[in-house]
Amino acid sequence: MTSQAIPYKIYLSESEMPTAWYNLRADMVNKPAPLLNPGTLQPMTAQELSGVFCDELIRQELDNDTALFPIPEQILSFYKMYRPSPLVRAYCLEEKLGTPAKIYYKFEGNNTSGSHKLNSAIAQAYYAKEQGLKGVTTETGAGQWGTALSMACSYYGLDCKVYMVKVSYEQKPFRREVMRTYGASVTPSPSMETQVGRKILAEHPGTTGSLGCTISEAVEAATSTPGYRYVLGSVLNQVLLHQSVIGLETKAALDKYGVKADIIIGCAGGGSNLGGLIAPFMGQKLRGEADYRIIAVEPASCPSFTRGKFAYDFCDTGMVCPLAKMYTLGSGFIPAPNHAGGLRYHGMSSTLSQLYHDGLMEAVSVKQTDVFQAAEYFARVEGILPAPESAHAIKVAIDEAVKCRETGEEKTIVFGLTGTGYFDMVAYEKFHDGLMSDYIPTDEELQVGFDKLPKV
Amino acid sequence: MTSQAIPYKIYLSESEMPTAWYNLRADMVNKPAPLLNPGTLQPMTAQELSGVFCDELIRQELDNDTALFPIPEQILSFYKMYRPSPLVRAYCLEEKLGTPAKIYYKFEGNNTSGSHKLNSAIAQAYYAKEQGLKGVTTETGAGQWGTALSMACSYYGLDCKVYMVKVSYEQKPFRREVMRTYGASVTPSPSMETQVGRKILAEHPGTTGSLGCTISEAVEAATSTPGYRYVLGSVLNQVLLHQSVIGLETKAALDKYGVKADIIIGCAGGGSNLGGLIAPFMGQKLRGEADYRIIAVEPASCPSFTRGKFAYDFCDTGMVCPLAKMYTLGSGFIPAPNHAGGLRYHGMSSTLSQLYHDGLMEAVSVKQTDVFQAAEYFARVEGILPAPESAHAIKVAIDEAVKCRETGEEKTIVFGLTGTGYFDMVAYEKFHDGLMSDYIPTDEELQVGFDKLPKV
Repeated sequence: MTSQAIPYKIYLSESEMPTAWYNLRADMVNKPAPLLNPGTLQPMTAQELSGVFCDELIRQELDNDTALFPIPEQILSFYKMYRPSPLVRAYCLEEKLGTPAKIYYKFEGNNTSGSHKLNSAIAQAYYAKEQGLKGVTTETGAGQWGTALSMACSYYGLDCKVYMVKVSYEQKPFRREVMRTYGASVTPSPSMETQVGRKILAEHPGTTGSLGCTISEAVEAATSTPGYRYVLGSVLNQVLLHQSVIGLETKAALDKYGVKADIIIGCAGGGSNLGGLIAPFMGQKLRGEADYRIIAVEPASCPSFTRGKFAYDFCDTGMVCPLAKMYTLGSGFIPAPNHAGGLRYHGMSSTLSQLYHDGLMEAVSVKQTDVFQAAEYFARVEGILPAPESAHAIKVAIDEAVKCRETGEEKTIVFGLTGTGYFDMVAYEKFHDGLMSDYIPTDEELQVGFDKLPKV
Repeated sequence: MTSQAIPYKIYLSESEMPTAWYNLRADMVNKPAPLLNPGTLQPMTAQELSGVFCDELIRQELDNDTALFPIPEQILSFYKMYRPSPLVRAYCLEEKLGTPAKIYYKFEGNNTSGSHKLNSAIAQAYYAKEQGLKGVTTETGAGQWGTALSMACSYYGLDCKVYMVKVSYEQKPFRREVMRTYGASVTPSPSMETQVGRKILAEHPGTTGSLGCTISEAVEAATSTPGYRYVLGSVLNQVLLHQSVIGLETKAALDKYGVKADIIIGCAGGGSNLGGLIAPFMGQKLRGEADYRIIAVEPASCPSFTRGKFAYDFCDTGMVCPLAKMYTLGSGFIPAPNHAGGLRYHGMSSTLSQLYHDGLMEAVSVKQTDVFQAAEYFARVEGILPAPESAHAIKVAIDEAVKCRETGEEKTIVFGLTGTGYFDMVAYEKFHDGLMSDYIPTDEELQVGFDKLPKV
């Protein structure tokens, strides 16, 4: 098939879409460390988790051995409304850069949530519905996950209660309004609705919130309301499992045209997109079937991979959640203002953390203005206005393509374009006006977070 | 092919994409009336138009006989970045409505302009570049056309000067910022930059602008700046020609699966989407090869088809443009506040006006809150948050599908989903808060506009 001309956009047919999610952990020799009960410091059992998460999702969370989880028919049908997403050959970008590299991006932005988040939201809502629950709670930072969950809950007739980081709630009223269109209730966090919210507000009266503290509130709301469970859009194994649909489609599309990737690049906040994109490729690598350079890109202002510690830490600020072993900046770390809300989390998926620790992938951090420069360049050349999160991957993909121009190497670069920036125009405006901060935390500032890591 | 299962989304392959635009006028017995010189009341010649429009676009504008215009290779390449757009089978909507009708929509929102406008913008920018021009000017109301033109000009390295209706400029700062991302300059209109702007401001100091007056400013700016021409996103024959790509793709996708449409529905402001969507179907109808019900949907607050006069009128408020024979509410008509900025134009494409006058299509008007109810319903069921403009077509498509439920008829309904509503959340917020106006002009109010129609 290698002689076949590669179209600008590769769409799989419905019959070529994956019918099972791939669980990367099944092929890992060093499994990700288990979640720990913060009281006993023992691995969390399914029973302990059952007050927080849906039963089937717990099963997925704890299963390190099953490679394939069949996608339920109802979820497949929903996927068909907005998937397969296109794998785009960036012909225009290649030409503009004058690079011999072949650049592809998997574009997940063509749905109303504006990102890949819907892939897991619909799965989590489905299992909540199957269990006969009344509703779910969650947190959202940038708003993409909250929007995705609102859409999914609306589809299954579930209540959806979203706690939104206060600064985002105020800066992005339109995101809030989209969630409202899908019938969700949206509360700025920290709020007076929960004990943990009231405690945080008492201690930090002027706080504009953080993802970690919003998680605490959403978990409390779920566990204290009958018929509710908590759902999360990143970090967890179950989320990476659902998001494997991104990588599976990408690989199927490349295989269809006989293309072998050399470098795979994704932005990394909690790891949902990166973990999903790389899943089948990393699986090949783990099984010794193929090799790839896999690069995680994170903001220099929130550098959990590149400057964090690999240690057990709380997943939330309120310290009500289990401990996860991960690359972390400490659960109290609040990154300097930056506009990639989806990448402002203090920690990182345990699965990706283990893979990074084992030397199976690389990580780089990039500065905010460099990211927006790449975003604007890409928008003008490829026509898609990227989300700030996605632009982190664009920045490094361009850097790698430019290296190919210098060396003459015809590498194949694949990156994840997680979403669109339509709700991020305040950030673009700051960039245009030269008002964007490139603050990077000092070693001393990071040490404050490390000093507070739990002693496990 | 009729036995083949129809996927949720039909994507043509690149080789199935149309390679020529279809000029509906070639098959019309009663041709649209020519533009008139407002001074001489004689048909505008190519030479008279050459100070305003690009030469090739004038040729397309005046040609009522050539059926097919080959799409230049460079435009085809650009189309491949975001086209073919999907023809979606609305399985979920059908199920939710419990209708035996088969519903399809052609979704044009998957590009950064958020609408079909890019189809003509790239063509107009291309011809401007080919002619060696320095830049173009235009007006924008809702902002979709301005965004599309900004993208197209950025691609070809042309200057782009956008006059934006002042109320939109202020209410939609994010639209402005997207245009800025693509390097366009955006001026709220009326402005002090043009004679006509200064005149309008002197006469109506507090005005928040209208599309008609913004057109006057953009035309003046183009004709008074060397190396510039004016481009327009709707109404004109050339725009309908470029937009025929929507209908040609739609028809090719339906033909591929052996599906025959019964009813074709599109929203109508100036006619760019509707004229493009229906082009090949209307062509069949004109040639006696097939029959379709074709329905234009317009806002009850700006009812040019359903309550306007078929008469020669100015295309702009400043009366600097040629006269067009069309259904019009008078060039001074300012519709009551509504949120479908793309449907607030006082007139209508001459081509569509002639077809409507000849009984070849129907028109209905719908109230704003009904439109937003349909929009929200659709968003929840089909997952796409529609632009207010597009939701006009959704409203009538749902109405027709409900009729089928009542009669048991298995009609095939095709409608144009022109774009997404991500920049229209202020409108959705008003709808949610019950603050939306349903004002419909009285006969007396409309008569004021009719009384001022030029005597031709």
